[in-house]
Amino acid sequence: VMRWKTVFLLWLVGASTGCVHTMVTSLEKVILDAKKNFVETVKLNHGLGAGFAVWWILTAAVMLVSLGLTLNISPVAAGSGIPQMKTQLTGATIKGYLSFRTLVAKICGLVCSVGAGMYIGQEGPFVHIASALANCFIYMKGFGEPFKRIRENKPVKLAILEAACAVGVSSTFRSPIGGVLFAIEVTSTYYMVANYWKGFLAAFSASLMSHVIEMIISLFDTDSSDSKGTFEFDPVFRIPYNTTTYTSLEDIYATTSYEIWEIPLFIILGVFMGYCGSFMVRLNAKLSRFKSRIMTECRPATKEIVWTLMAATITSVCYLFGNFATESYHDNILAMISPSDLDTGKWTVPQFILDWDWGDQGVIFPLFLFFLSNLILVSLSLTVAVPCGCFVPLFAGGAAFGRIVGEAVQYWAPTATSTPGGYALVGAAALTAGGTRTVSVAVIAVELTGELEYILPLFLGVFASCIMGSRYSPSIYDSILKARK
Amino acid sequence: VMRWKTVFLLWLVGASTGCVHTMVTSLEKVILDAKKNFVETVKLNHGLGAGFAVWWILTAAVMLVSLGLTLNISPVAAGSGIPQMKTQLTGATIKGYLSFRTLVAKICGLVCSVGAGMYIGQEGPFVHIASALANCFIYMKGFGEPFKRIRENKPVKLAILEAACAVGVSSTFRSPIGGVLFAIEVTSTYYMVANYWKGFLAAFSASLMSHVIEMIISLFDTDSSDSKGTFEFDPVFRIPYNTTTYTSLEDIYATTSYEIWEIPLFIILGVFMGYCGSFMVRLNAKLSRFKSRIMTECRPATKEIVWTLMAATITSVCYLFGNFATESYHDNILAMISPSDLDTGKWTVPQFILDWDWGDQGVIFPLFLFFLSNLILVSLSLTVAVPCGCFVPLFAGGAAFGRIVGEAVQYWAPTATSTPGGYALVGAAALTAGGTRTVSVAVIAVELTGELEYILPLFLGVFASCIMGSRYSPSIYDSILKARK
Repeated sequence: VMRWKTVFLLWLVGASTGCVHTMVTSLEKVILDAKKNFVETVKLNHGLGAGFAVWWILTAAVMLVSLGLTLNISPVAAGSGIPQMKTQLTGATIKGYLSFRTLVAKICGLVCSVGAGMYIGQEGPFVHIASALANCFIYMKGFGEPFKRIRENKPVKLAILEAACAVGVSSTFRSPIGGVLFAIEVTSTYYMVANYWKGFLAAFSASLMSHVIEMIISLFDTDSSDSKGTFEFDPVFRIPYNTTTYTSLEDIYATTSYEIWEIPLFIILGVFMGYCGSFMVRLNAKLSRFKSRIMTECRPATKEIVWTLMAATITSVCYLFGNFATESYHDNILAMISPSDLDTGKWTVPQFILDWDWGDQGVIFPLFLFFLSNLILVSLSLTVAVPCGCFVPLFAGGAAFGRIVGEAVQYWAPTATSTPGGYALVGAAALTAGGTRTVSVAVIAVELTGELEYILPLFLGVFASCIMGSRYSPSIYDSILKARK
Repeated sequence: VMRWKTVFLLWLVGASTGCVHTMVTSLEKVILDAKKNFVETVKLNHGLGAGFAVWWILTAAVMLVSLGLTLNISPVAAGSGIPQMKTQLTGATIKGYLSFRTLVAKICGLVCSVGAGMYIGQEGPFVHIASALANCFIYMKGFGEPFKRIRENKPVKLAILEAACAVGVSSTFRSPIGGVLFAIEVTSTYYMVANYWKGFLAAFSASLMSHVIEMIISLFDTDSSDSKGTFEFDPVFRIPYNTTTYTSLEDIYATTSYEIWEIPLFIILGVFMGYCGSFMVRLNAKLSRFKSRIMTECRPATKEIVWTLMAATITSVCYLFGNFATESYHDNILAMISPSDLDTGKWTVPQFILDWDWGDQGVIFPLFLFFLSNLILVSLSLTVAVPCGCFVPLFAGGAAFGRIVGEAVQYWAPTATSTPGGYALVGAAALTAGGTRTVSVAVIAVELTGELEYILPLFLGVFASCIMGSRYSPSIYDSILKARK
């Protein structure tokens, strides 16, 4: 009976996280799109200056809402969630960390902080949300307290929480395998192999649930020409093969391979991304220390408000340097890892930036700005007391730098069979690995693009990045944990 | 210095296993093809009876060579290797198990036992080979004893051996991710997460080395029209999309999806495969006990020879029931998981079997025979004192049964978007999971076909199989360990 209850609970955690994830993502998109459209209208009617002002005010306002929700409902809802879950899984408890109150604060705060258009990801917060959901189910009072025996059995309870962490990562990327591995890497020191299946079961329940929800939505979507009620495993970033460019299968196979002289390039890219990841970790630690030293005589809430406004202002300035700041991470990453050319029309950047650029596409400089702003602004965002993760921003920043390398390879060696998108994928995984110091990022990258072709460069890049990064700093999670102590 | 030496040693283990694997596979193919061609000639000239006799004699002869090599050089080289490595990794030692002598015996014995055409896989033996290689490097006397410090540091030594196990699995299937996970599942109880990267590094070194070897071979292959010196991540069982059937990308995406009502079918398939896996484990335990009881007054060597001859005879009888027994596992699995129709011409079966068949393809009955013979004969093969694994035969048997289900679905629901090959893949993973009781088989199945589309059915089938299987028997590895005690 215990076993079947465990299976049911795991399914429940996975399925409910899948539902929450769909809801949160939709709400974020609604806020982001509303903001973008409003600013576009203002810009058209009143010029760039007014557009920027409105963009700035809206970013700051939505961030303050997020801060208010976090501070007033549950201050422990701030931050990523992964470092704290690592502490929780050792058996120690942070008071109220997995309560229903914190769950509500985290969900609402996350919707606002991502919706504000900050350099914030949602994978760390989702680890927290899934764990809090699991905890709420375990301590549920209604329905005859179905999981009472699990509550009293500490090893089983911890195993369920560990599986919930896996669900959190998996549901963000719809990458069940990589999600489980990533969760193991960042939250555990010793792993009990017999608990393996629990993580996978919960992660696949989440995956199945988000598929079912999508299918149900597609049934009501009368405009869609897709086959209704059909199940398709659709990676979040399925590379959209441009059917006008690639008409035959041979073309695709040809474009997704690489040549042996490119292997060292992937490794060098990994090494550099490792340094950059460490730089991000160290900058974050410096900013944290700086924040704790200033305004010591103010009320903590005042200090948080000032700090949040400062972060929102700095982030908004990026708007002046190019429209990529107004696109969602999903769209930006998709554009970069795609084998097709970058759509320069969509990424409008001021003329003075384009004048500095080399290459006939005019995308190198905007890409570099995107990479740099991600690296710096994510370390700033992580110090703000709102729910925020660093995985997705690092992934996007790495993709931008990888794309630069890929475009350069195409420029100097046009006969190369690789695509710039392949370099973008390797760069994305390597920078994320440099910050989080995990190998399983490579697995996530494989899963979320559905491309097994780049598995070898991905792992080589990630290894190089992890080895180099660990010489200069701990992982971002360990660094945050250290700062808390 | 220690760290870089570890990295170098891991690379060395991976690369050398990759070399050995290429060599062993080529030699097995040479023996198998020579045997097949000779028998075909005899059959043409002297009829089926003479063909069968020659087939039988050759099978028995090559098996006796394998037995002789194993018994005379190192008797501990017999069997799979996974149960023994599980013991080794707890810190206990089996005398001479990882010696150079055993390594030679295992490699030569494996070439013969697989080349004989028995129902024998090479993934368990390769776990042993990779571990023995690692151990030989660690205890190497020449070159100034480079790994002396690793030898004296027991935790590091065990971590290297654990990584070597991962290499063994990965190199068999060229599935680095699934290989590492499978090795963790079957050899560890608690896993130290900090050792994660060691397994991946070694596994990818093996993968890279086998790519390099292939590339070098392709450079000398003047007939090949493939682009020379180009790297392609080529899964072992890359499903060959028939370009005459599938001309556009939409076709492929369409054929690799499935509908929601098929999900329960995948789960039921998994449940049945779980029962079958348990049946195989129990039959193997029964045969082991039977073998240990008979001929107790004979010399052990005599008993082994008689038992081997008996196994070879029973296996050869399958030859009469269809030519699938003469194909390699690689070709059979590839045919079954492919979305194209099965080539019935290749699988010649006697007319009296075809007369019983239903369906217009005439493949159901041969497939069922293949499934049944794999299930029974692999449990028999595992009791013979030669190097042998059970992973690949179980995978092939499951693929055959899954294909039957897939063909039935196509027959009764021709509008279904799934392909029979998808069911074959799920069946293959589920039967293997039922025997080995591992979740990571699903990851291996994903990796070796390069198909992420079936990730959800694969995991559902594997879960169902593991849960059902564990009600009736332990895993095959635990069962073998228990019998040894």
